[in-house]
Amino acid sequence: MTDATVPTSLAEAQARDTNDPLAKLRDHFVIPDGLTYLVGHSLGPTTRHALKHLDEAASGAWATDIVGSWNSADWINLPTTVGTKLSKLLGVAASSVVVCDSVSINLFKLVSALIEQTGMVRRIIVEATEFPTDQYILERLARLVGAEFIRTDSGAGAEHLFQGGVLVQSLVDYRTAAIADLKATEAIAKKSGGAVVWDLSHATGVVDLKLSDWAVRYAVGCTYKYVNGGPGAPAFIYVEPDAVDDLQTPLAGWLGHAQPFAFDPHYAPADGVKRFVAGTPPILSTAALNGALDIFDTVCLSEIHSKAQALGDMCLTAFAALGLPSSSPGVGAPRGGHVSFDHPQGYAVTQALSESGIKSDFRTPSTIRFGLSPLFLRYVDVWQALETLQNVLESEVYHEPKFQTRAEVT
Amino acid sequence: MTDATVPTSLAEAQARDTNDPLAKLRDHFVIPDGLTYLVGHSLGPTTRHALKHLDEAASGAWATDIVGSWNSADWINLPTTVGTKLSKLLGVAASSVVVCDSVSINLFKLVSALIEQTGMVRRIIVEATEFPTDQYILERLARLVGAEFIRTDSGAGAEHLFQGGVLVQSLVDYRTAAIADLKATEAIAKKSGGAVVWDLSHATGVVDLKLSDWAVRYAVGCTYKYVNGGPGAPAFIYVEPDAVDDLQTPLAGWLGHAQPFAFDPHYAPADGVKRFVAGTPPILSTAALNGALDIFDTVCLSEIHSKAQALGDMCLTAFAALGLPSSSPGVGAPRGGHVSFDHPQGYAVTQALSESGIKSDFRTPSTIRFGLSPLFLRYVDVWQALETLQNVLESEVYHEPKFQTRAEVT
Repeated sequence: MTDATVPTSLAEAQARDTNDPLAKLRDHFVIPDGLTYLVGHSLGPTTRHALKHLDEAASGAWATDIVGSWNSADWINLPTTVGTKLSKLLGVAASSVVVCDSVSINLFKLVSALIEQTGMVRRIIVEATEFPTDQYILERLARLVGAEFIRTDSGAGAEHLFQGGVLVQSLVDYRTAAIADLKATEAIAKKSGGAVVWDLSHATGVVDLKLSDWAVRYAVGCTYKYVNGGPGAPAFIYVEPDAVDDLQTPLAGWLGHAQPFAFDPHYAPADGVKRFVAGTPPILSTAALNGALDIFDTVCLSEIHSKAQALGDMCLTAFAALGLPSSSPGVGAPRGGHVSFDHPQGYAVTQALSESGIKSDFRTPSTIRFGLSPLFLRYVDVWQALETLQNVLESEVYHEPKFQTRAEVT
Repeated sequence: MTDATVPTSLAEAQARDTNDPLAKLRDHFVIPDGLTYLVGHSLGPTTRHALKHLDEAASGAWATDIVGSWNSADWINLPTTVGTKLSKLLGVAASSVVVCDSVSINLFKLVSALIEQTGMVRRIIVEATEFPTDQYILERLARLVGAEFIRTDSGAGAEHLFQGGVLVQSLVDYRTAAIADLKATEAIAKKSGGAVVWDLSHATGVVDLKLSDWAVRYAVGCTYKYVNGGPGAPAFIYVEPDAVDDLQTPLAGWLGHAQPFAFDPHYAPADGVKRFVAGTPPILSTAALNGALDIFDTVCLSEIHSKAQALGDMCLTAFAALGLPSSSPGVGAPRGGHVSFDHPQGYAVTQALSESGIKSDFRTPSTIRFGLSPLFLRYVDVWQALETLQNVLESEVYHEPKFQTRAEVT
């Protein structure tokens, strides 16, 4: 670790923690003693706020006022209430975000609504290296409605947008954490009359998003990674307010109806992005997310992203020193909240790290990812994790296990 | 209350409770003192099992093993694990049910898959009196894929099925609790090559369903009414195992993939009904549902349905004695778990009942529903609720409130 911008000793790492404006936030998290958790890019850990809101929804509202809680606890507005809290993390208007359903289903709604618009080229574009489940739902949607489906080479999505249509693209690559060229891609969409739907799953809560400033019109994302909303927490949909009136959701449900309680047999969309809420939302899971978002009230996204960059720079410096190849953007280059490297015995290395209390993440065939959630990780945690990695590699204590039975959610 | 089959005094109601094989189950529920809760057909109350499973998922698994819980707590299989528990309530094979998403979204998946099948007439049929949100999603689906959409008169759905297509029908009517003629409708579908998707939302957990015996092939339903799974608990999809191989979900997601962890860019459906799981499920909400289902291990659906019938007969006898018109099937006739009556001051009557600790449910313009969940309601509860109703009506203590701000989920 020789780069001047990163700590070069444990003492320097400790000094960074002392001066870290986010350091106090670790107390909000419930993390087992002795665990260095480098998988916040997959599932964020529990926060006291999340558990408190969950308990209030279950042992509180549900157990006491039961069905009356749709009013008394305002469950009925939870998709928009939580959407409003989330809007601050996206840098958008309060009323332009709802939480509901999963990323897959929200992608289906939004891309379907876009390609059904008058004047839109009925073409769905996605890169072959895009997060696989995004590809599944988009290919299936295209077939269902008879739209053209284009699976491009990696990096070639934007150029296909010159002919119009809808491009779906992750802002942060799930393997490397590279950040896509948002402004250039949006400029192409503007020119061609096409649209870009950004998947912000690996960006939300760690990248300092300013979607309104960047003229982004459409986005979806999950909330269980850096937002720490809980396993399978509802996803979100963002639509720029001026762009929403022409969009008709294919999944028309009573909670996206203009008058949910009129029991009209005919559907009429609610104003704004709320039309994308469909059926009754999972209140308990949404309540936990609601609580998890509280922590973001006290912090600044730019500080969060800066710390993630600094922790990533530490890792990349160490990877280089250890001779580990990495496809992540290098020291000083913008990234999402994780970094990755490759090792031919990758799975065995993650197992050896795990035995030393360092939880990381393996992707077939050989990639190890370190998720660097800035709200609860200390510089010393990452320093010690890198020391452990060095020990594991030098002592070759890793070994190929007989059985590989992992099943994790990226 | 003069009918010989119903209690004619408080003492007789108490005697029924003494002999009730379900009486002991009330102890599993968390219900506020002094409340008679007649809205279990809308949102079932909390059970100790549900709260315990929720706590184990949140303060247990999530807080301790975090992402590792996908394996260690077997979250990854929760949609099928819980589906298997639910299969007993439906009277179907263990592997033929999954829980995921909402009723609206599951209807979209299943009806879309059916009308896309080779040889199926591309026609979606629904009655104009069907639950409104089912109509929304079906009409929108038909428009999206260019299928014919037929909204029939009430009761005319089955006859349109003679020309093929897919009929969606509630087994239990949400207003009257009338039970549809399932066997006759399925016989028409069999003859015409069409299909029926049953919405079992108001039936599951209270009607003694034997879907396999009845040769039912397709169903969806919610789990937050008589199953007590919690607000917005995930819905289910049932497909008869021999009928599932030809069905392709339009909402293809990674958890319905044959190999979710292969990260293949191409979708391949999982075996069986599991293919209908799409994105990452809301684990906390699913965990509560998982717990809520435990109570059904110890009871027999036929006893549950018999008690619901008996409680309904009590109510209908009283409604007749009080001169209240009811559209519910009469004393002795098969019904779902609720009964309804009409009153021109219906909303004010529910408010007056509520002030006396009787929580019931109002539907515009004049319908009051009493939900008669047999797992926690006692005969004396219903007896006293009916006495209170009589007092409210005779004393005219109800009054029209200035503001009507209710928002409840049926």
